[in-house]
Amino acid sequence: MEKVFQYIDENSEQYLNWLIEACNQPSVSAQNRGMIEMKELVKSFLSKVSAEIEEIETERYPIIYGEINNGKEKTLTFYNHYDVQPDDPIEEWLSEPFKVEIREGKIFARGVADNKGNLLARICAVHAYQQVYGELPINLKFVFEGEEEVGSPHLEYFATNFPEKLKTDAMIWEGGTRGVEDRRLNVGLGVKGISYLELVCRGANTDLHSSEAAIIENPAWRLIWALNTLKDKEENILIEGFFDDIAPLSEKEKKYIQSMHFDEEEIKELYGIKSFLKNVTGERLKEVLTAAPTCTICGISSGYIGEGSKTVLPSVAKVKLDFRLVPNQTPERVKELLRNHLDKHGFEDIGILQSHGIHPFNTNPEDPFVDVVLDSISEVYEEKPVILRNLAGSSPMYKMLKNTNIPAVQIGVANQQSNYHAPNENIYIDDYIQGIKVTASVIKNFR
Amino acid sequence: MEKVFQYIDENSEQYLNWLIEACNQPSVSAQNRGMIEMKELVKSFLSKVSAEIEEIETERYPIIYGEINNGKEKTLTFYNHYDVQPDDPIEEWLSEPFKVEIREGKIFARGVADNKGNLLARICAVHAYQQVYGELPINLKFVFEGEEEVGSPHLEYFATNFPEKLKTDAMIWEGGTRGVEDRRLNVGLGVKGISYLELVCRGANTDLHSSEAAIIENPAWRLIWALNTLKDKEENILIEGFFDDIAPLSEKEKKYIQSMHFDEEEIKELYGIKSFLKNVTGERLKEVLTAAPTCTICGISSGYIGEGSKTVLPSVAKVKLDFRLVPNQTPERVKELLRNHLDKHGFEDIGILQSHGIHPFNTNPEDPFVDVVLDSISEVYEEKPVILRNLAGSSPMYKMLKNTNIPAVQIGVANQQSNYHAPNENIYIDDYIQGIKVTASVIKNFR
Repeated sequence: MEKVFQYIDENSEQYLNWLIEACNQPSVSAQNRGMIEMKELVKSFLSKVSAEIEEIETERYPIIYGEINNGKEKTLTFYNHYDVQPDDPIEEWLSEPFKVEIREGKIFARGVADNKGNLLARICAVHAYQQVYGELPINLKFVFEGEEEVGSPHLEYFATNFPEKLKTDAMIWEGGTRGVEDRRLNVGLGVKGISYLELVCRGANTDLHSSEAAIIENPAWRLIWALNTLKDKEENILIEGFFDDIAPLSEKEKKYIQSMHFDEEEIKELYGIKSFLKNVTGERLKEVLTAAPTCTICGISSGYIGEGSKTVLPSVAKVKLDFRLVPNQTPERVKELLRNHLDKHGFEDIGILQSHGIHPFNTNPEDPFVDVVLDSISEVYEEKPVILRNLAGSSPMYKMLKNTNIPAVQIGVANQQSNYHAPNENIYIDDYIQGIKVTASVIKNFR
Repeated sequence: MEKVFQYIDENSEQYLNWLIEACNQPSVSAQNRGMIEMKELVKSFLSKVSAEIEEIETERYPIIYGEINNGKEKTLTFYNHYDVQPDDPIEEWLSEPFKVEIREGKIFARGVADNKGNLLARICAVHAYQQVYGELPINLKFVFEGEEEVGSPHLEYFATNFPEKLKTDAMIWEGGTRGVEDRRLNVGLGVKGISYLELVCRGANTDLHSSEAAIIENPAWRLIWALNTLKDKEENILIEGFFDDIAPLSEKEKKYIQSMHFDEEEIKELYGIKSFLKNVTGERLKEVLTAAPTCTICGISSGYIGEGSKTVLPSVAKVKLDFRLVPNQTPERVKELLRNHLDKHGFEDIGILQSHGIHPFNTNPEDPFVDVVLDSISEVYEEKPVILRNLAGSSPMYKMLKNTNIPAVQIGVANQQSNYHAPNENIYIDDYIQGIKVTASVIKNFR
């Protein structure tokens, strides 16, 4: 690999220029801004590695599908996206969002971290490998969508209707970060799912004077009682069947979870708390954070909530509940269990609105591809990686891979201060170059 | 009494003009508007009945104290106030708030119901009685304050520092209403008290991403659990000692409570409810509405309460609680009991802020003065009165009478659509005239 790494170093300016070119092109899917130009630019990059390119049409922005078929045994797919978040609040940017500026070794631009830096790193890695060795040791596929920042509305359609294009032995997924202080690369094996629901409890058809509370039902109290049946004071979720579907952690997953850096004292001081939930500490704390489902009140409201007092009997009470799901829970099942639970406890009248739901997604840590990635990382980075069973955010991976056993691993070129979705998005030039190298290593090691 | 009633009828125009003169004079204590002029006007009315007048100075507006001492055995006191509410929203008035307009037999003006109509009715009754019989059969006192609409901040001072001026055998208190359809006069014997508290529960020092909920405490959940210990699903208030101080209802109180008109079907339809709390109906329903204390969530809020979803772990949760108190509960004791309760259940960290507290006040229904008033009513009104143990609103009566056994009964000239504190405040001319007559009857009957 030394030759490929050397080639990458020698051509780092060219690879940086490709990224700058990509970042200078706006591509805001939510605002239909520059999307056609960006699509053409992505195709031009893919043509540099001689990929066969196809546009998968959707109602809005096509998925750019690329293939390099060398007739090899193994196929690896890169999933990335060419759309970016809007750039507002524009006034908080120190340089123009769509005109790259390099300051203190960092590249500043909207989308450089999420996700153009990764998209280009994949292409550059292939390019470098090809320049040094000519032929690749594996087949490659590229799935570059243009709608990730608007919820990937056509990824499921793609998976369902083009199964041959999704035929692959493994996937490198989107992006990832590196620790700022410890410089350890985060390797993502999955995400928790989410079921975000709103419960609505109604009383009289209008707010009333609170003196009427002696004889007229208060929906706020009913909601309190209903919520109290969901989770007890000891933080146990009481919904019948809620834990039944959960897959147990394998020994490897437990081991990977412990690779996480978590400074308890630092976090406690940062948030001004005396202890963690249920006084959990140490290995168990990491396990809970990573692998426990949650039932969280994200918002509750009823009646008068302004300053001072108003003597009102509310007519409606609402709560927003966020369930973080772990394999193999599903948003649909959780909603069903919640409905059954409320009915059983006499709260048939409390309505449930599903705000959104995302399935959890996890790669089997026993899959050999995980070791391929970990080995490749050790060739490029000095620091030992952190292996994350679940990232904090959400991901469209489930939509694409739900009926497959395809392992998908996330590694990327950003860092924990890259300002995803925020002003002054940035990555380190060095991380970009190392991202190219690690991708090249994966190509080499995955046979 | 026929002579007095006849005199009142013959001089009704004059008595109406006195009221118009009073209403045309603004007297908004909250805005320091016209208060001095109004004070002088009230004194000029009192001089028409030859009362000895004294101003009790306070930091803002004096209490006008008047006395007619005939050396009789019994003394009756009229409590009224000469200040009124502000007139906004001014654009919703059909005529000028401080320029009386008479439409369809009604007098429209700010303060005509609350409380100038009553203040003048008392004076006119004395005047008419004096014109017909010369001397009054009892001694009279007038306590007319100018700060009722700003919370009667000096009434307690008055009671404490001028006990000889409060020496009286009975009191007619402020105002009251008449049913719109059934025309029955409401006779008020008291008000519930109130303790309005805010509970505050805090978690981390900042809102966090809801994925952190796996390991960091959520103050919204803690508040739910705390509230759940206050009142159970069967609507029982569980605060230890909460019911201990409550005075039992006498037979007469029970009887009076049943005089209340309460059309269950109409109310259920009006509010769109299927049943009343705990499915209570009939006599028990009236008793609960009148004599049961309450613990009401007037408002609860935590986290994100806007449209759509936000995955947030809240840092603070708040609830506004309104306890309606009955004799002999007190706001101070209820707050103390609540504190003890929360501490006992492990919620020492939840803070309690007292927003405001008013003691309940009730006249003993066995007091002979109540019968004097009821007899007087029967001389003037065809319809049988409704005797209310507790009115819905609050009252400063407790501040004045707390250490006495002075019976205080509320009757007045307004009706249930008089728009207290609202635009287009009004009373019927007929109700004003009848209010003069019933006051005259009380003067005659109270010996």
